[in-house]
Amino acid sequence: MNISANRPRRLESYVCGTWAAGAKEGAPLLDASTGAPVALIDSTGIDFKAALAYGRQKAAPALRRMSFHERAAMLKALGQALMAQKEEFYALSLATGATRIDGWVDIEGGIGTLLSYASKGKRELPNTRVLLDGDVEALSKDGTFSAQHILSPLQGVAVHINAYNFPCWGMLEKVAPTLLAGMPAIVKPASQTAYLTELMVRRIIESGILPEGALQLISGSVGDLLDHVDGQDVVTFTGSAYTGRKLKTHPTITENSVRFSMEADSLNASILGLDAAPGTEEFDLFVKEVAREMTVKAGQKCTAIRRVFVPRAFSDAVIKALGDRLGKTVLGNPADENVRMGPLASLAQRDEVRARIRDLAAEAEIVAGNPDQPQIVSGDAAAGAFLNPVLLYCDNPGSAQAVHDVEAFGPVSTVMPYDTVDDAVELARRGKGSLVSSVFTNDPDFARETVLGLAPFHGRVMIGNRQSAKTSTGHGSPLPGLVHGGPGRAGGGEELGGMRGVKHYMQRTAIQGAPTLLTAVTGRWTEGAATYSDGRHPFRKSLAELKIGDQLVTATRTVTLDDIAHFANFTGDTFYAHMDEEAARANPFFDGRVAHGYLIVSFAAGLFVDPAPGPVLANYGVDNLRFLTPVNPGDTLQVRLTCKDINPRIEAEHGEVRWDCRVTNQTGATVAQYDVLTMVAKTWG
Amino acid sequence: MNISANRPRRLESYVCGTWAAGAKEGAPLLDASTGAPVALIDSTGIDFKAALAYGRQKAAPALRRMSFHERAAMLKALGQALMAQKEEFYALSLATGATRIDGWVDIEGGIGTLLSYASKGKRELPNTRVLLDGDVEALSKDGTFSAQHILSPLQGVAVHINAYNFPCWGMLEKVAPTLLAGMPAIVKPASQTAYLTELMVRRIIESGILPEGALQLISGSVGDLLDHVDGQDVVTFTGSAYTGRKLKTHPTITENSVRFSMEADSLNASILGLDAAPGTEEFDLFVKEVAREMTVKAGQKCTAIRRVFVPRAFSDAVIKALGDRLGKTVLGNPADENVRMGPLASLAQRDEVRARIRDLAAEAEIVAGNPDQPQIVSGDAAAGAFLNPVLLYCDNPGSAQAVHDVEAFGPVSTVMPYDTVDDAVELARRGKGSLVSSVFTNDPDFARETVLGLAPFHGRVMIGNRQSAKTSTGHGSPLPGLVHGGPGRAGGGEELGGMRGVKHYMQRTAIQGAPTLLTAVTGRWTEGAATYSDGRHPFRKSLAELKIGDQLVTATRTVTLDDIAHFANFTGDTFYAHMDEEAARANPFFDGRVAHGYLIVSFAAGLFVDPAPGPVLANYGVDNLRFLTPVNPGDTLQVRLTCKDINPRIEAEHGEVRWDCRVTNQTGATVAQYDVLTMVAKTWG
Repeated sequence: MNISANRPRRLESYVCGTWAAGAKEGAPLLDASTGAPVALIDSTGIDFKAALAYGRQKAAPALRRMSFHERAAMLKALGQALMAQKEEFYALSLATGATRIDGWVDIEGGIGTLLSYASKGKRELPNTRVLLDGDVEALSKDGTFSAQHILSPLQGVAVHINAYNFPCWGMLEKVAPTLLAGMPAIVKPASQTAYLTELMVRRIIESGILPEGALQLISGSVGDLLDHVDGQDVVTFTGSAYTGRKLKTHPTITENSVRFSMEADSLNASILGLDAAPGTEEFDLFVKEVAREMTVKAGQKCTAIRRVFVPRAFSDAVIKALGDRLGKTVLGNPADENVRMGPLASLAQRDEVRARIRDLAAEAEIVAGNPDQPQIVSGDAAAGAFLNPVLLYCDNPGSAQAVHDVEAFGPVSTVMPYDTVDDAVELARRGKGSLVSSVFTNDPDFARETVLGLAPFHGRVMIGNRQSAKTSTGHGSPLPGLVHGGPGRAGGGEELGGMRGVKHYMQRTAIQGAPTLLTAVTGRWTEGAATYSDGRHPFRKSLAELKIGDQLVTATRTVTLDDIAHFANFTGDTFYAHMDEEAARANPFFDGRVAHGYLIVSFAAGLFVDPAPGPVLANYGVDNLRFLTPVNPGDTLQVRLTCKDINPRIEAEHGEVRWDCRVTNQTGATVAQYDVLTMVAKTWG
Repeated sequence: MNISANRPRRLESYVCGTWAAGAKEGAPLLDASTGAPVALIDSTGIDFKAALAYGRQKAAPALRRMSFHERAAMLKALGQALMAQKEEFYALSLATGATRIDGWVDIEGGIGTLLSYASKGKRELPNTRVLLDGDVEALSKDGTFSAQHILSPLQGVAVHINAYNFPCWGMLEKVAPTLLAGMPAIVKPASQTAYLTELMVRRIIESGILPEGALQLISGSVGDLLDHVDGQDVVTFTGSAYTGRKLKTHPTITENSVRFSMEADSLNASILGLDAAPGTEEFDLFVKEVAREMTVKAGQKCTAIRRVFVPRAFSDAVIKALGDRLGKTVLGNPADENVRMGPLASLAQRDEVRARIRDLAAEAEIVAGNPDQPQIVSGDAAAGAFLNPVLLYCDNPGSAQAVHDVEAFGPVSTVMPYDTVDDAVELARRGKGSLVSSVFTNDPDFARETVLGLAPFHGRVMIGNRQSAKTSTGHGSPLPGLVHGGPGRAGGGEELGGMRGVKHYMQRTAIQGAPTLLTAVTGRWTEGAATYSDGRHPFRKSLAELKIGDQLVTATRTVTLDDIAHFANFTGDTFYAHMDEEAARANPFFDGRVAHGYLIVSFAAGLFVDPAPGPVLANYGVDNLRFLTPVNPGDTLQVRLTCKDINPRIEAEHGEVRWDCRVTNQTGATVAQYDVLTMVAKTWG
């Protein structure tokens, strides 16, 4: 099919393996700059209950059969396929009012999030289907009863109800962790810009990269969908607090304790440091950032700066600098390449923002921009939803209310003076919970006091200064590796944050039992679980032969005083505890000269290593090494090495094997305990 | 004051630093066995809004000023103080219908949870006020912009609305993680058994161990308390799903996105393995456990086994064995020491359970116990809420409904047959989300298939077998280190789980900025942050002098082929990659003979260690050691050691110091990267 932004067409939903428009013709969606119809949207007649069942029965088992690395590879392939088609998305994105830069955040930012989850998934997750969470908990003294937490994918469908401002990123940032966790998704974009989401979903389905049913799309209303969700489903919502609360208290959601995550209003603040006087780099960075946050996406970002707190003495300078900068923002149709800021998403949206500016103006004066008379260089002045940036100033933010409560979701911010660092923190907190705040300062003390003061009220806090001027990703950019969401007014949700976001689609379960059975469930060897010694050195076994619990108990070696002295002189580590009996005795931890920790692990390797070429290719690291009992001259060491974890890679001829390594002395006391990390070939010989 | 279980007295609330009874006389609470009045309860006239404000303003800042270790020490002192007074709690506990064993779970189980959080907090948390969460995220290639997630205590109050069945444990298991996180709590116990909670809170307040306001108590209704919670508060609820949903959708809770955690109904299952035929140890363990879960606390436990799934061939044997065992349960007043099971909490509760048994009996037959004619050895037959254990059998659980939906909150369970392992999992899942299920098997395959199948629907799954028979803590016991809560019907909440439970009372925030400012906020040195070299070796500095970023860059050392050969022969680690040029070249990771990883870290220590006695007392371990570039003969090593973390102990003359250790070669490439862990004296010389 051929999609054009100029001719209205009926958007389709993709449900139960079929593309179909709703039964009715649907409501028209208009180009934000010209008012021309772009598409018609309707979902009447869709069987929403069947869509949930299809996702649960068709796609979910297929996703769960894949390993984390397989799902990560799937996300990578999908990201690459979409990136190759990005210009088509940019072209249609213009109709939403987005400039090229706005589109970049939405389109390449969204695809980049997919790719980031792909690479993080491969790097940070094992190549398994179940995640282990935390360490083994010993529950009995004799080691016959232990526990391990695991995370497994929820077996339902994730329903993502998204906002109009990021039709691509808004979908992809939620779908990436959902799919990586092993859950299918149903996406319902906000109608106003759903045509762009629909185009991208069309390209995703065409690519054939996802298992069928892993992604379904609803163009239009969700109908009775939420009447059918259950405790294995997840519902997320980004949008207005009003709608969010309605969904959150939906009877089926509360009845079945459906996981619900909301990202709603946010009166994000930015604070200029007391040190950042006019003329400093931080002052300039701050002005640039506030102006940028006001104008990117015409201020239609949940993370945009709404409240601008500045030292009272610098208020005039900030207002002047910001006003100058905002005045140069060229407003018009983003199809025109001179344009720096496009229209709001719709005329209705502009009416809404104008009403909110009037609320704010009751407490603050407009110091830059005229909300009623847009100055545009292109686009339709009557049918386009244009609004120039509007800056307000509120002289007494401590007693004002609306400036901390009213979110004008457009290019609108209010400058407010503060006196002390405590004052700044207290004012920022009056937003009652925000997605993000930023602090521009080069003073470590100011940074510490404000950031720690802001933290409990925020999901993210950014510090701007000269050192990061060139590399900072900015106040307004959620990043795949960092949590996105905030407490209180911001909705209380948490998204992204790297692998944290994946876990929102998984159930944490504590598994208790005897170690052998625990190991059978988790796939990781646990102290006390069955071990196997068949006479062959486990380093002679490839991944094809090795099994969890394969164990080597080595010969012994006695450490002599000569060994210690020799090691000290050879390595240069002549620390007194190894060299001087009297001084060692004075140390609170030792009874006399002791062997070096590094000598113990070196001798241990000498005991457990099998020298000839074999499937074990390299020791690439050691984890959690602890020296638990001092080794004195005359002590005899022995090593017990047990295969703990086997993690074959999908794109290489080897994989990681983790060995539990315990070094004991002649009394059986543990001298050192650690994990030895090796690369082992999949096959050998 | 003198508290007696025999004389009714007016319970008091502890709010805003004062003990006070309600304005009205209040409703009587009756002894479960005798019907005698124990206490009167009312909270009319309490200023609930003031209680919240008092907690936020008086106690919260005091708790936040304490470090995690200080709070852990506080919990330990409190646990010890309560344990010393335990007999007083046991005496009053009899009135609730609890036997000594029931009381042990509630009283010593609760105090044990406090003590467990105390010791885990000291062991697993740093001695700071802010927690770091996860690793640093590098956000720029040149290292000038990075991020670190932190967790800081929410600044409100945790409101805990508890169930009647565990008046002590129910309070303490929530208060322990709350206080450790740095938040104050308001506890509202269910009225029926509130006299025991009130007694324990009285002893807690008298002890003077907690900062004033850290614990407040409401005896009676919470009145308009929830109208005043905000986004920094937390509300938890344990009890019926009906009440839970009402609270969860309370307008103030949804409006302010108040964190709400619920633990509600749960139709927990236990599955007898296909391998566990009559005569096996697992069969006997299963029968014992089901009977125990039915009778402890007279089955009034959220975690009790309600559904008993057994291989069809073993059904008769199970019913017979269970019936025999249950028939021997001596029912009566728990003040009588021969009694093994006490009454339900109240006559109203017994009416409720009888009604639910009638619901179940529509689908299942009663095979043991008569719900209408209690057989008691003591207590008042008319006024006591006695009910003998009732066992039902449902032959066709696949088509039955009530057996999977109706929770009879008393000594009631239903035995149901299953045919295959998939069948067992499918039936257990029909509980739609439970707190816990258990599986009794000695077959690792059966364990793996059932446990992984149950996991997404459960917060905890226990495996019982002969190996853990003596040490298992049992199906029904939540443990401080394991998560407690379940998805779907169970309420979707999560409690405990060790330090996971503490984080429920904290806000996670991503902090972004230039490394130096990031370090100023987090207190941990980050790559790229400022470093300090004043000419003094940092190992010469005590905790009093050392600061984050203190750095040593060592002399260099060239590794010779002789060194490698010598080390190999000395340690016995003659792995071919160190010894045989040709074989080493054939290895996919090496270009020829390489130095041992343990040689690199040994030489590194030789370069950075300062030999003379000084404040650095011992190297007790190494974390996250990775060998990143092979070292060939002729390569020259250098070490950069940077003070990363300083963690003074509160009860010792030393503390842990973590050093970032980077070993580079002559090209500047990183050869090895790890954290060196040392014990350092607080003062020296």
